[in-house]
Amino acid sequence: MTTEEFHSSDKAITSETSSYMKVWSVPSSINLEMGGKLDNVKIAYETYGKLNNKKSNAVLICHALSGDSHVASHSKDDLKGWWEIFVGPGKSIDTNKYFVICSNVLGSCRGTTGPNSINQNTGKPFGKNFPLITVGDMVKVQKLLVNDALKIQNLLCVVGGSLGGFQVLEWAKQYPSNVKGCIGIATSSRLSPQALAFDVVGRNAITHDPHFKDGQYYDTNAKPEDGLAIARMLGHITYLSNDSMNKKFGENKLKPREIKTDFEKRFSIGTYLAYQGKKFVERFDANSYITLTTAMDLFSIGENKKEIEISLKNTNSDWLFISFSSDWLYPPSQSKELVEALVSSGKNVSYTNIPSKAGHDAFLLEDELEDYGNLTSAFLNKLTGDNEKTSYSLEPSQREKTNIFYNKRLDLNIIVDLIPKNSAVLDLGCEDGDLLSLLREKGFTELIGIEIDYKKVETCAKKSLTVINYDIEDGLKTFSNKKFDVAILSQTLQAIKDVEKVIIEMTRVAKASIISFPNFAYQPLREMMFQEGKAPKTEGWYGYEWYNTPNKRFPSIADFEDFCNLKNISILRSVFLNSEKGIQITEKPNLNADNAIFVLGDPEKITR
Amino acid sequence: MTTEEFHSSDKAITSETSSYMKVWSVPSSINLEMGGKLDNVKIAYETYGKLNNKKSNAVLICHALSGDSHVASHSKDDLKGWWEIFVGPGKSIDTNKYFVICSNVLGSCRGTTGPNSINQNTGKPFGKNFPLITVGDMVKVQKLLVNDALKIQNLLCVVGGSLGGFQVLEWAKQYPSNVKGCIGIATSSRLSPQALAFDVVGRNAITHDPHFKDGQYYDTNAKPEDGLAIARMLGHITYLSNDSMNKKFGENKLKPREIKTDFEKRFSIGTYLAYQGKKFVERFDANSYITLTTAMDLFSIGENKKEIEISLKNTNSDWLFISFSSDWLYPPSQSKELVEALVSSGKNVSYTNIPSKAGHDAFLLEDELEDYGNLTSAFLNKLTGDNEKTSYSLEPSQREKTNIFYNKRLDLNIIVDLIPKNSAVLDLGCEDGDLLSLLREKGFTELIGIEIDYKKVETCAKKSLTVINYDIEDGLKTFSNKKFDVAILSQTLQAIKDVEKVIIEMTRVAKASIISFPNFAYQPLREMMFQEGKAPKTEGWYGYEWYNTPNKRFPSIADFEDFCNLKNISILRSVFLNSEKGIQITEKPNLNADNAIFVLGDPEKITR
Repeated sequence: MTTEEFHSSDKAITSETSSYMKVWSVPSSINLEMGGKLDNVKIAYETYGKLNNKKSNAVLICHALSGDSHVASHSKDDLKGWWEIFVGPGKSIDTNKYFVICSNVLGSCRGTTGPNSINQNTGKPFGKNFPLITVGDMVKVQKLLVNDALKIQNLLCVVGGSLGGFQVLEWAKQYPSNVKGCIGIATSSRLSPQALAFDVVGRNAITHDPHFKDGQYYDTNAKPEDGLAIARMLGHITYLSNDSMNKKFGENKLKPREIKTDFEKRFSIGTYLAYQGKKFVERFDANSYITLTTAMDLFSIGENKKEIEISLKNTNSDWLFISFSSDWLYPPSQSKELVEALVSSGKNVSYTNIPSKAGHDAFLLEDELEDYGNLTSAFLNKLTGDNEKTSYSLEPSQREKTNIFYNKRLDLNIIVDLIPKNSAVLDLGCEDGDLLSLLREKGFTELIGIEIDYKKVETCAKKSLTVINYDIEDGLKTFSNKKFDVAILSQTLQAIKDVEKVIIEMTRVAKASIISFPNFAYQPLREMMFQEGKAPKTEGWYGYEWYNTPNKRFPSIADFEDFCNLKNISILRSVFLNSEKGIQITEKPNLNADNAIFVLGDPEKITR
Repeated sequence: MTTEEFHSSDKAITSETSSYMKVWSVPSSINLEMGGKLDNVKIAYETYGKLNNKKSNAVLICHALSGDSHVASHSKDDLKGWWEIFVGPGKSIDTNKYFVICSNVLGSCRGTTGPNSINQNTGKPFGKNFPLITVGDMVKVQKLLVNDALKIQNLLCVVGGSLGGFQVLEWAKQYPSNVKGCIGIATSSRLSPQALAFDVVGRNAITHDPHFKDGQYYDTNAKPEDGLAIARMLGHITYLSNDSMNKKFGENKLKPREIKTDFEKRFSIGTYLAYQGKKFVERFDANSYITLTTAMDLFSIGENKKEIEISLKNTNSDWLFISFSSDWLYPPSQSKELVEALVSSGKNVSYTNIPSKAGHDAFLLEDELEDYGNLTSAFLNKLTGDNEKTSYSLEPSQREKTNIFYNKRLDLNIIVDLIPKNSAVLDLGCEDGDLLSLLREKGFTELIGIEIDYKKVETCAKKSLTVINYDIEDGLKTFSNKKFDVAILSQTLQAIKDVEKVIIEMTRVAKASIISFPNFAYQPLREMMFQEGKAPKTEGWYGYEWYNTPNKRFPSIADFEDFCNLKNISILRSVFLNSEKGIQITEKPNLNADNAIFVLGDPEKITR
């Protein structure tokens, strides 16, 4: 095993301190959430880029458990930062455009006041007497830094992963008027009991280290390094995924690296963990580890969707959440819970679950940087209005041949005309956001898309659209009853597994639903089937072979009408098209139309 | 939190010893796999039930890391055993039928020789001088017990979960002629690096406990209890699932139980873990924990499918593997790897992945007992030939109305007639095993089924059929080229997503493939579609509505023939049926047949 293989979330963090780090002393006392107060608090911080005249380009980056203020290097000679790949001139968080602030959190040991700081009442380090702090306290101190030290009233955006994401949530909750955008990466409303349990075991290892001395080890010769190293080893297992560990340590299980350690060296994974543990104790304080993990364990924006919704009901921010599929410490389901709670209370939320094998560490690694980097920069551009207002395009060249809109988009304009002005619109299966863009051009402002393909969600982000990376087959439960004026299912019906559930859900979440689909009973298709005895195939939406079509359902206009009758769903309006000829059909639509648009809903509910 | 909520995998294990436990002294030295030898080894064991005259009903149960010989109680007054729910009179492993043996493993501390035993060379406990042992050594000692103490030559079955499953694999490998059946539950060919990493951290916690004294703590007043408790806490997290922890500790996170402990008590999960740790140190020796986990970490039947295949190539056993969907310590993918390796080398393997929320612990809990219990008892009955030889049945009442065979099974008999005598047959989507049972009645012996529904796999197990609980859409990669004479896809084509892949895979793994499907171009269906402009619906296989049919593909005979031409797949034979009339069709089958049977393959390869 080579040294390179020993990379991990903190590969770039060194025990040294950048000469660019500044320290600000908070002039007032800090009253803490759990009681008690702290005087003479010092905050270590670094800034990058230039604050503009309007002071509207400040981006605060919040670090995770073991991070510090040194998010990136300031010059070629400077030490690399812990998010070097993500922050800097021309990078995802572009320091040529934004004034970036990063401070070490309260309770840490990397410059900001923490348990190893001198308690002015005793003249000795706080140790066990450092008060219990919360994520809310960390954020309160950051707010003072931003307002009083940097003289900035409002932040363009707060960004953070893991514990950094907890701080993002607290910012939005505590200072709803001061944060325009929030980006939470690989984070959650609270730790799962499983994640919390690992913290408990880690702390028990520290507090039962004989050198811990009840936290007052600063004036002894020894520190609880074994306990801290064991806690860190455990942490490292949770930052990786089963897959990534297999890749790194599967084949060479019995080939440990030769390192100097008195921890077990029999297996390669053992020496990796010992190495991580050893590296960590050189730069981190055991009491800070206890303080920060306890703050993480106590953190809760809500224990369920309802509580989260209440916690964040006053927030005014635009939100972006990003999760990673293999992250089991902050699993995607927890990001989804945040998304659902915010959507529920009408907040503006975009979300993407990025496929990754790297586990929780993914947000610090280069593997998925393209995805989370693009999403972040697009979101920042959305906040500043810098995204190219890409309009939907009729260029056939941009579409696949099997796309119904390959040649014509007749039905799309008709759908737009069917939607009452000022409607709040949900587009199910919004793909690259063509319909949403068109609606925005027409003056609609309340627009949300749902899209299963995370790459298409990125495309939508670049158009400043608000899109949630969900499967519509189970994503609609997110939305409360009659949340939208109109829900649209455009050319997607035929690919849905549980048609009944999706349509019933649409009629629940929206006052009116617009459903368009290709008519399987269109005369040429019928004739093809009848005369040739083969599954019909034409250019456009039936341009697939029977054995590889993504279509699962083959509805006709008559079938759809029967379905609505059976389920007591009112058809408010129907428009039938022959898109080949580019005309509307009124005579025998089930025979003459290749495409149908239905408006469903309760007529009394759709006046706005 | 009540005491009941503190149940866990070892709830039934007490620190006391059953009076039914016996100890046998091995008369000879044991030469160990990693070098060295042990003299005067003692084995603690218990037996249940009566050995029959032929000595053919012996079932050996192998325990997991913290288990012992007391698998179940022997009488009402006896202590409950660790698998009490599973083993006993009338239970899944029925001690009225089987002579059950369970012994404490070598290296443990529950009666069998281990590090806390007296080293006769020094007169003191072995401690750190206890030699490195392997799972192979544990099994070697069990073999001596079975042969020399109990005078039994062959075992009907070896059963075990987790580390117990490792022993099952070793038995089959080392003593291929002496084990008729093997049941591996929640097990794997080796620990994943992730699982191994948790062991490493646990051992580091023990060896860095100040009371560990390099393993020679027996003559001191203190034992490394803190370290052992921490290791056990960590283990417990891995035995549970995220879901089960959420259920137990999500809501009442901040309501710790009042227990006497100097471990952290802030969170409910913390007191649960502290309680488990404390309970464990009362009955387990830290050196044994190190010894056994190291043996587990060293264990490997193979690091990949190929290596596993080589390791087990000489085994003659009939196999059953059972995994649990939420087990992340021994994940289903690892059971599947074992299944695939054994299938690859032509072994007889059944497999079921039981949906469960309980994590690794599931195999010891009552939640899924019905499933793993039924599978186990059915498998034991298969070994003894005691399963009712249930034949396939024509009773319509047993079938759903949408089943093609609701009324008639014309095509099934024809399929059977198409298969050459003595063929090895793979039935894809075998459901309740009707076709396989029929084939067995006709004298076929090499029969394997693949079925996605685990409950149907249980039904097949009760018929002594060998069935693997896989999705055929990705399960065929398991099989090597031309492994079977005939692969059958009966009435399943229309529900397959990737038709092309499945058919290509079938033609790869079998010399000939038989595919039967309902013909979508059957005249009444065509007419219905043509005249009414609706998705055709009839009794039988088109008895679904367009919006809820499980069918995804609607192939006609003509379509299927086109497909075979396009893909250069030879059609060796075709039979067309009108199952309504109960006749074969020769004229215009695409119009007149409601059902088609195709035999595909390379004509030169299908002579046997």
